[in-house]
Amino acid sequence: MARINDNYRKLQAGYLFPEIGRRVTAFQSANPDAQVIRLGIGDVTLPLAPAVVQALHDAADEMGTADGFRGYGPERGAESFLIDGILEHDYRARGVELSAEEIFVSDGSKQDSGNIQEIFGPECRIAVTDPVYPVYVDTNVMAGRTGPANEGRYDGILYLPGTEENGFTPPPPDGPADIAYLCSPNNPTGAVASHDALAEWVAWAREHDAVLIFDAAYDAFIQDASLPRSIYEVPGATECAIEMRSFSKRAGFTGVRCAYTAIPRGVTGTAANGDRVPLGDLWMRRHSTKFNGVPYVVQRAAGAVFSPEGKKQTQEQVDHYMANAAHIRAGLGAAGFTCFGGEHAPYVWVRTPDGISSWDCFDRILGEAHVVTTPGSGFGASGEGYFRISAFNSRENVETAVERIQRAFGG
Amino acid sequence: MARINDNYRKLQAGYLFPEIGRRVTAFQSANPDAQVIRLGIGDVTLPLAPAVVQALHDAADEMGTADGFRGYGPERGAESFLIDGILEHDYRARGVELSAEEIFVSDGSKQDSGNIQEIFGPECRIAVTDPVYPVYVDTNVMAGRTGPANEGRYDGILYLPGTEENGFTPPPPDGPADIAYLCSPNNPTGAVASHDALAEWVAWAREHDAVLIFDAAYDAFIQDASLPRSIYEVPGATECAIEMRSFSKRAGFTGVRCAYTAIPRGVTGTAANGDRVPLGDLWMRRHSTKFNGVPYVVQRAAGAVFSPEGKKQTQEQVDHYMANAAHIRAGLGAAGFTCFGGEHAPYVWVRTPDGISSWDCFDRILGEAHVVTTPGSGFGASGEGYFRISAFNSRENVETAVERIQRAFGG
Repeated sequence: MARINDNYRKLQAGYLFPEIGRRVTAFQSANPDAQVIRLGIGDVTLPLAPAVVQALHDAADEMGTADGFRGYGPERGAESFLIDGILEHDYRARGVELSAEEIFVSDGSKQDSGNIQEIFGPECRIAVTDPVYPVYVDTNVMAGRTGPANEGRYDGILYLPGTEENGFTPPPPDGPADIAYLCSPNNPTGAVASHDALAEWVAWAREHDAVLIFDAAYDAFIQDASLPRSIYEVPGATECAIEMRSFSKRAGFTGVRCAYTAIPRGVTGTAANGDRVPLGDLWMRRHSTKFNGVPYVVQRAAGAVFSPEGKKQTQEQVDHYMANAAHIRAGLGAAGFTCFGGEHAPYVWVRTPDGISSWDCFDRILGEAHVVTTPGSGFGASGEGYFRISAFNSRENVETAVERIQRAFGG
Repeated sequence: MARINDNYRKLQAGYLFPEIGRRVTAFQSANPDAQVIRLGIGDVTLPLAPAVVQALHDAADEMGTADGFRGYGPERGAESFLIDGILEHDYRARGVELSAEEIFVSDGSKQDSGNIQEIFGPECRIAVTDPVYPVYVDTNVMAGRTGPANEGRYDGILYLPGTEENGFTPPPPDGPADIAYLCSPNNPTGAVASHDALAEWVAWAREHDAVLIFDAAYDAFIQDASLPRSIYEVPGATECAIEMRSFSKRAGFTGVRCAYTAIPRGVTGTAANGDRVPLGDLWMRRHSTKFNGVPYVVQRAAGAVFSPEGKKQTQEQVDHYMANAAHIRAGLGAAGFTCFGGEHAPYVWVRTPDGISSWDCFDRILGEAHVVTTPGSGFGASGEGYFRISAFNSRENVETAVERIQRAFGG
């Protein structure tokens, strides 16, 4: 008899964004004339940069020729035109030296941050900041590292509340945990961790022999060059941290799919017999057994992001979204909302008015302003009483959305 | 302290193809002038079909425009231009009616066949034919469904030997198992299951409330229209079988990456409390939590495989490879080898001469004929004494490889 993985039944409701999609679809069916503006899911809207489009064309032509055709590539990605660019532009330019075998190219940071838990033992205790990107939690629930949910939190997970008091950047816990997920600039709060804050985490991880999973999917949105973009800018992090980056937000790749995970050789875990095992070896085994590489045309497109034109064009996209974020902050502030984030991240984190719940606020903004946001409680118990608003849209849509929210909430 | 997943340490040696790659690299370093012909890994060699290249171009152009840009798509794939084509051409044309919500598009059958085990309980007992595609086994080892390896087999897995006597198509076991992996046309043996053989498996699965994982990655190579291409051609299979298909071999997509899994609504598993749970619901939860959809340009390329030109052009590719397979069978037969498969599959399965081991034969063919094959023992204990030779190459390379093997082995 085929038994199912009963851990899936512990999962609460649907994954957040499908649930939002269902509510928006229902609203649109009931209000077919409403012009809904989507500032919910963090999905880019600008067309691909010309340098990226050109790289797709060139690679498609190559694939159509006998000499240029490429079948299976190395599962970890192409060294010559992609990994070398990553090492040079994402790391060496920030004073960090990594080597090619420490980089693993994949089809998304959602995938990587969801799959990374597989290389760890079932007994590992997970720590997450709260609110949190749901994938970190849900994938550990599916793997059986938690008990059932109680009032929005799973037994066995160590939740670290991000609050207005700690600037939505909770410090490490007093005691131990085995794996801690960090995200800076943060999804959903838009908060960014300082060098000192990350140094505290690295010290904690080394004290407790824990591993940090550092999600830097939004690093390109950091406006202050002195803030860390990589956790490896902190000494000692190459002994305890795994880092993930994505082309999704920095280069508009949400529908193109390319990301990577860095696992320095010094990052190890402990086997049952006490051996120290490089986590990169385990991840490589997973990668070569359960993955077959990113499409050649997509890797070429990602490589073009590091070309002079690609860098310039994608930087203009980032600048566009960050100007949107500034407009949202200013506009919602003028309407009486209390706003956080949005200065080094494409997300503004907003306190709900009059203490109403996140989902009530979501429904009210959708119903009255025809704007889709993301309810903060969807990111965890500590997100209750907030909502996230995304800067990924056209200037016109952002301006219209802000005006409508101001009108609806009497700004 | 971060403990690792100790199950990874049960895995024997490297995954097969990386190990072959290491041996070939070592040979080439020692023999830089040797012109090695690769008939090992089943990787296509013909350039992408013109219709597919055109679809990549068109989609790249779309992605470069404000109106045509696509970000996150539905995780399960695009209904209008891809899933509808799958339903029409892969199923309805064979008399099978499935619906769009029963199809899940992904970036590869390796991924799907590796990930599918996640939705089952840890106590499920796995049955595999032997020799077998290593991914089915290795991913269950990683998940802890087996004991350690003993003489090439993992404790806890039910191995069903494929032998010359049973035509490399073992019948179902006498007793129960919970999940059985089947592959027809078979990788590595090239054997194809008849309608009656599949009907036996469906009857067995229904008797024991087991789930069949049916890998049809090579269905396009079937030459006899009366042989089943889909397990759903067998009545009752929509109650017990999950099916996987890929564009990799049928349309040269190994470097493009697109596949799909079908899970009919009638396929269920049993929860701890006895509930019957549709496996499609669990897979959808996994898909939307750990996956972000196939690149838009790739989905468009896959959709073009179903266009009149795409069908014609990719059929020509299949015909080319099957003519290669016929040449390999005839040529190795003339050299005194005993050959199997290769009539409805792009693989010829060959008995090693003089009873030498698979890896010794691999090394000898590489060293003397400069041809890469795949040692049968890499696919399981019952593969010992055989090697697999792939038809994926140019006619010229196949002819040269056959001549060299004939010379080396005195044919």
